[in-house]
Amino acid sequence: MAPAGAKRNILERLDAGEIVIGDGGFVFALEKRGYVKAGPWTPEAAAEHPEAVRQLHREFLRSGSNVMQTFTFYASDDKLENRGNAQRFTGAQINEAACDLAREVANEGDAMVAGGVSQTPSYLSCKSEAEVKGIFKRQLNVFVKKNVDFMIAEYFEHVEEAEWAVQVLKTSGKPVCASLCIGPDGDLNGVSPGDCAVRLVKAGANIVGINCHFDPMICVKTVKMMKEGVERAGLKAHYMVQPLAYHTPDCNCQGFIDLPEFPFGLEPRILTRWDMHKYAREAFNVGIRFIGGCCGFEPYHIRAVAEELATERGYLPAASVKHGNWGAGLEMHTKPWVRARARRDYWEKLKPASGRPKCPAMSTPDSWGVTKGHADLMQHKEATSLDELKPLFEKAKANKVLFS
Amino acid sequence: MAPAGAKRNILERLDAGEIVIGDGGFVFALEKRGYVKAGPWTPEAAAEHPEAVRQLHREFLRSGSNVMQTFTFYASDDKLENRGNAQRFTGAQINEAACDLAREVANEGDAMVAGGVSQTPSYLSCKSEAEVKGIFKRQLNVFVKKNVDFMIAEYFEHVEEAEWAVQVLKTSGKPVCASLCIGPDGDLNGVSPGDCAVRLVKAGANIVGINCHFDPMICVKTVKMMKEGVERAGLKAHYMVQPLAYHTPDCNCQGFIDLPEFPFGLEPRILTRWDMHKYAREAFNVGIRFIGGCCGFEPYHIRAVAEELATERGYLPAASVKHGNWGAGLEMHTKPWVRARARRDYWEKLKPASGRPKCPAMSTPDSWGVTKGHADLMQHKEATSLDELKPLFEKAKANKVLFS
Amino acid sequence: MAPAGAKRNILERLDAGEIVIGDGGFVFALEKRGYVKAGPWTPEAAAEHPEAVRQLHREFLRSGSNVMQTFTFYASDDKLENRGNAQRFTGAQINEAACDLAREVANEGDAMVAGGVSQTPSYLSCKSEAEVKGIFKRQLNVFVKKNVDFMIAEYFEHVEEAEWAVQVLKTSGKPVCASLCIGPDGDLNGVSPGDCAVRLVKAGANIVGINCHFDPMICVKTVKMMKEGVERAGLKAHYMVQPLAYHTPDCNCQGFIDLPEFPFGLEPRILTRWDMHKYAREAFNVGIRFIGGCCGFEPYHIRAVAEELATERGYLPAASVKHGNWGAGLEMHTKPWVRARARRDYWEKLKPASGRPKCPAMSTPDSWGVTKGHADLMQHKEATSLDELKPLFEKAKANKVLFS
Amino acid sequence: MAPAGAKRNILERLDAGEIVIGDGGFVFALEKRGYVKAGPWTPEAAAEHPEAVRQLHREFLRSGSNVMQTFTFYASDDKLENRGNAQRFTGAQINEAACDLAREVANEGDAMVAGGVSQTPSYLSCKSEAEVKGIFKRQLNVFVKKNVDFMIAEYFEHVEEAEWAVQVLKTSGKPVCASLCIGPDGDLNGVSPGDCAVRLVKAGANIVGINCHFDPMICVKTVKMMKEGVERAGLKAHYMVQPLAYHTPDCNCQGFIDLPEFPFGLEPRILTRWDMHKYAREAFNVGIRFIGGCCGFEPYHIRAVAEELATERGYLPAASVKHGNWGAGLEMHTKPWVRARARRDYWEKLKPASGRPKCPAMSTPDSWGVTKGHADLMQHKEATSLDELKPLFEKAKANKVLFS
Repeated sequence: MAPAGAKRNILERLDAGEIVIGDGGFVFALEKRGYVKAGPWTPEAAAEHPEAVRQLHREFLRSGSNVMQTFTFYASDDKLENRGNAQRFTGAQINEAACDLAREVANEGDAMVAGGVSQTPSYLSCKSEAEVKGIFKRQLNVFVKKNVDFMIAEYFEHVEEAEWAVQVLKTSGKPVCASLCIGPDGDLNGVSPGDCAVRLVKAGANIVGINCHFDPMICVKTVKMMKEGVERAGLKAHYMVQPLAYHTPDCNCQGFIDLPEFPFGLEPRILTRWDMHKYAREAFNVGIRFIGGCCGFEPYHIRAVAEELATERGYLPAASVKHGNWGAGLEMHTKPWVRARARRDYWEKLKPASGRPKCPAMSTPDSWGVTKGHADLMQHKEATSLDELKPLFEKAKANKVLFS
Repeated sequence: MAPAGAKRNILERLDAGEIVIGDGGFVFALEKRGYVKAGPWTPEAAAEHPEAVRQLHREFLRSGSNVMQTFTFYASDDKLENRGNAQRFTGAQINEAACDLAREVANEGDAMVAGGVSQTPSYLSCKSEAEVKGIFKRQLNVFVKKNVDFMIAEYFEHVEEAEWAVQVLKTSGKPVCASLCIGPDGDLNGVSPGDCAVRLVKAGANIVGINCHFDPMICVKTVKMMKEGVERAGLKAHYMVQPLAYHTPDCNCQGFIDLPEFPFGLEPRILTRWDMHKYAREAFNVGIRFIGGCCGFEPYHIRAVAEELATERGYLPAASVKHGNWGAGLEMHTKPWVRARARRDYWEKLKPASGRPKCPAMSTPDSWGVTKGHADLMQHKEATSLDELKPLFEKAKANKVLFS
Repeated sequence: MAPAGAKRNILERLDAGEIVIGDGGFVFALEKRGYVKAGPWTPEAAAEHPEAVRQLHREFLRSGSNVMQTFTFYASDDKLENRGNAQRFTGAQINEAACDLAREVANEGDAMVAGGVSQTPSYLSCKSEAEVKGIFKRQLNVFVKKNVDFMIAEYFEHVEEAEWAVQVLKTSGKPVCASLCIGPDGDLNGVSPGDCAVRLVKAGANIVGINCHFDPMICVKTVKMMKEGVERAGLKAHYMVQPLAYHTPDCNCQGFIDLPEFPFGLEPRILTRWDMHKYAREAFNVGIRFIGGCCGFEPYHIRAVAEELATERGYLPAASVKHGNWGAGLEMHTKPWVRARARRDYWEKLKPASGRPKCPAMSTPDSWGVTKGHADLMQHKEATSLDELKPLFEKAKANKVLFS
Repeated sequence: MAPAGAKRNILERLDAGEIVIGDGGFVFALEKRGYVKAGPWTPEAAAEHPEAVRQLHREFLRSGSNVMQTFTFYASDDKLENRGNAQRFTGAQINEAACDLAREVANEGDAMVAGGVSQTPSYLSCKSEAEVKGIFKRQLNVFVKKNVDFMIAEYFEHVEEAEWAVQVLKTSGKPVCASLCIGPDGDLNGVSPGDCAVRLVKAGANIVGINCHFDPMICVKTVKMMKEGVERAGLKAHYMVQPLAYHTPDCNCQGFIDLPEFPFGLEPRILTRWDMHKYAREAFNVGIRFIGGCCGFEPYHIRAVAEELATERGYLPAASVKHGNWGAGLEMHTKPWVRARARRDYWEKLKPASGRPKCPAMSTPDSWGVTKGHADLMQHKEATSLDELKPLFEKAKANKVLFS
């Protein structure tokens, strides 16, 4: 592993052309481990079960991550109140605990701590810019107090809210990343990825990109569109990508949220480690240098990213001691025909079967497929029941040509 | 959670008609977390990284497991030597550390500690009964010293080796479980599940069953055949099942080892939590009362088993506080159409898409499909290279009718 | 093409070890061409549209068929009355017209005419043996008058009714074939394929085998079981097979009738010509010498059978002038990369995509999967409504373990 | 059926807002029947086996077709010479025979005869405009002599060659249709569907549209783009569509030619009759009024188009007497659970299984996926060997991001 020593800032690294490897998504990984509840997806486990959160940080560190994101996703006060958190811990306690855990593990290796904010219920219920910014400010206060290394505004579906977040985080003087959860069709108001990126850079973001909602290849493609937009505008930025570890060729603009399998039937879509090799190479080729993961990523997925880029980075991650490159460990397997699989060519060509002969390859997203209908619908941000939205759904569906 | 207090023995529980929930497979779960190497699959992490092993035990405990199996799979001395273990720790150190970790976590809840042995390279290389038994004895010495609650001989492909293991473990005076990794076609010499079970009961096993190699429904079916054999022979036993968390409708008698996806492309086959509900119910209906998991099981899979059987057991597992039954937590999701998924009917009927339109539903196992050819091949237990076995492979393949 | 001349009888050919190639199923082929109605499936087109029936006979002759089966499937008087035939033609007219068309085309090449009977509504509604035999006798009278070359009793689900048919046809003094539409699980009363075959040979059949309901590989396997039964009983017979041209790995004992796709959604299951090569070779290897097709077969499928067996037969069929062996005609294609497909290896290995990413690979049969429940149900042969049968359905379903 | 009487011209019908139903593709249908050779795909059967061609015309007429296209696809002199036609018949003989057959059957019902020309080897080998036009002129001479009702220039990949064809056909004074075999990405030089349509209308075409190469929904979408182009340009035209009867969601710009299944493994992709209902409705909704089929269409596919549009047309086709609407004929089926399928709702919702669990849902096209690389390649129209093109292939592939 690279020497930890006096760590350089993320911008120093990226300016020097280095690769920075991110971590994986905590809410999904900890949901499977029993510490996060699907639905609210709030991160009170940072305070309730620090040993579980610490262990997951450690696994990503061993797998090659250079960034420990504080487990503060959906930890804004309005979200914590709104979503049934048992209130054993205040928002400040959760945010502080998350910072401490990230710092503790970051100090065990070559990793930086990133304080993270994400989209808020306040914005969706049409609160004012001042109110929404106030929400971000309360989280920022903790990050400043705990002296995190840089900031990430991530998982925004509306570029406007992301701009507000960047403007708030920027006041810290630390480097700021801005990451949207959108695909090639743009944000939920139809602003293109290129235009989103330009607005985020103008708002002060040093690094822009995409996280969550879509599979790696779709996310890389979207970041490429952001990069082209920024370059066309004569601006400069670094780029990041932290996609799902699920194949989503059948998504509409809302991403995996609209797939009927979300969130409890996604297993057949999980990427293999070999899919991750292709992803890492493609992200690198496109010019992205902050490469990580989001929902669905387990430590071995991040390790695969680090192994694919080992030559460029100059070293393997610690956890590679438990992994022969391209399956080389299989040379020690009991069965001779399994030993025959210990080679790159075998795994690169394998098209894995689902083992589910009565299930299809693709799904029909639940709601609608047309950005336009979608935008109409999203104007009704305050709607709280499905019934209320039904007429708009029907209208949106009627505009769609579907072939089973 | 049920009161921990003075814990009753596994036989007391099963005799009283209670359900005992097992844990999931550690080698696969820890491989994904970066602590076990695929190929050798040895458990030196118990000594090297106790925090990771402890955390996994804890997650299974929270998910409802009543059994903490010592992480001693493939921890016989001959295996550890044979398979490139870095030798930083002796076999005794690894086995002792594993016992201590299991006990520490078992004491945190209503769980027993089970000392486990598994098939040995000594048997496969045709060592004598005395030599093979000597191997098991060395592991047993540790279990006795550490005073585990009961014993499990598991993952045996040849019933003869399992009988030897049972005979050794039986000398401890503790209850003994015997679990084979075979399917409905029987062990690798073609001994039927029913006959295997009879032999194991006669050798002294109190609980017999199946683990690993096949999917839940195939394993349950095989245990049912064992039960029928035992009852036909006028014997008595309890039954256990700890299957894969992978769908394997396309396996031959060798199980998932022969699937081309083993072990690095199995992701699309991972069972959902709802598949686990069906599995738990089916196992219960067949009369199995020790119900757990093996490779592929994550804590949320065990939680699903515990939730399905919550009425029969009288309580939910601790981790259910982070899981609404049948997706009820989704009622707190941001998007109204996701909230509409918070119901049993939705998840029971869902046939999840693979998201992999260029991959098939089933695979062709690598090697051969005919028990007979297989038995021939297995006589050559000492073979070490694929080339050596090629003529037998070809012969076995020639006997098979395959339609793509 | 082989010389027509004085044609030898089917038994002379089979006794001499020759291969006899059958034709394909007329009801499905003519349904697609607009001359047969799905549901009643009656063959009044023989009288109504002789040009269409004649043309289909001719196409099978060109493709290598040595047998022109009279288009008299479901042409028994009870069926024609029962099933809404518009009554423009009497049963005798239809049967006579069918004989004339088959003879006319048989005379154009090396083909024999086979008069065919199939299962009757009279049997299903529990009419007496005498009544059912009277039905067959009326069709036989036409075949005798028209001097067909041999007889085929085909598409029987109950071996008893097939025995009755054989006994009637036998009175003509012509060779008699008996072909059931059952799979490896036996007839609808659970009589095994081996036992069915023995009973049919004892009833007087010279040639026994299987047609319809299952895919080629399942049918060949079932005929193999029949052959083993006949040989075990110390009897002698020839063997025939005329399977579906649809893949049916997911059928229960009722065959493709129970698949949800029957009869209007079977397209994705249609066999390619290369599947037919495998089928023809497998049937030949098992010792079957009368090899043809049933529902789903088009002329090019029969041509593929004839091309696969061209070496053994000593000649190619006439229609091969429009088909290079193994795609050789593609050497004259415009695009160079299509020309590269003009080779056996390419087509043998191809696993064709469905082009239907939202459809699964296998279906769940509509009704039930357990022979036992099925037999119960079939005792109620006289039932005419679904409601009447519902309780039995539910009982049958309840006995089944299904994993989606 | 509608009265035949004095038939109105295609333009009279379309101007009156009527629907004109086309026929299906003859080369594929007759290849399966044994009269056309895949590879050259030339139509000498018109002269060699008139009974087979006449029968197919008749089946389409019965199914509702108002257009009998002369079977003159690839019947230009340069193609017939070039592609190994056995030369038993001259080009003029073949073209004349085809006209006579089409006229004979058209006279049996309410159908017009359309003389058809298609793309030529002369254009692909870079012959001059005068030479290529001379080729079309020779076919036109036959059509004029035989007094066909209108002209179709179809199956052109380059709009320029189609313009030349239109200019030649226009000299006859008859209505002219121009139909390209392109998708939404445009012709092989990258000219968009809208621009192609404008150029064809300016060249004199009365009706423009798409045939072959793509599935119905892709073709309808492409015609929609043509219509938008024509309307944007302030021009007027009628529109036609004659797509494949194969699902091709996985095609690149070259269409089904590039799929690895072309042409001998396409079976799993064949559309059902219910897919055809959706297609017919969608084509009608988009404003297309000349609606037919190309490769893969069998008579029952055209009948489904005619049944879907029966209300708008005011009558059912003749062959509907052998088809209950939406499966109504099944009410007369023997098995009660099959009778339960005699309803629209059942068939509309069915997602048919492939019955091929080891085959994928989508393929990777053989050659390349980028219009740009493609255009480069097509400049080398004269290339005759694959080796010659390899460097361009490699270059084209390198530009493509593919995820298995």
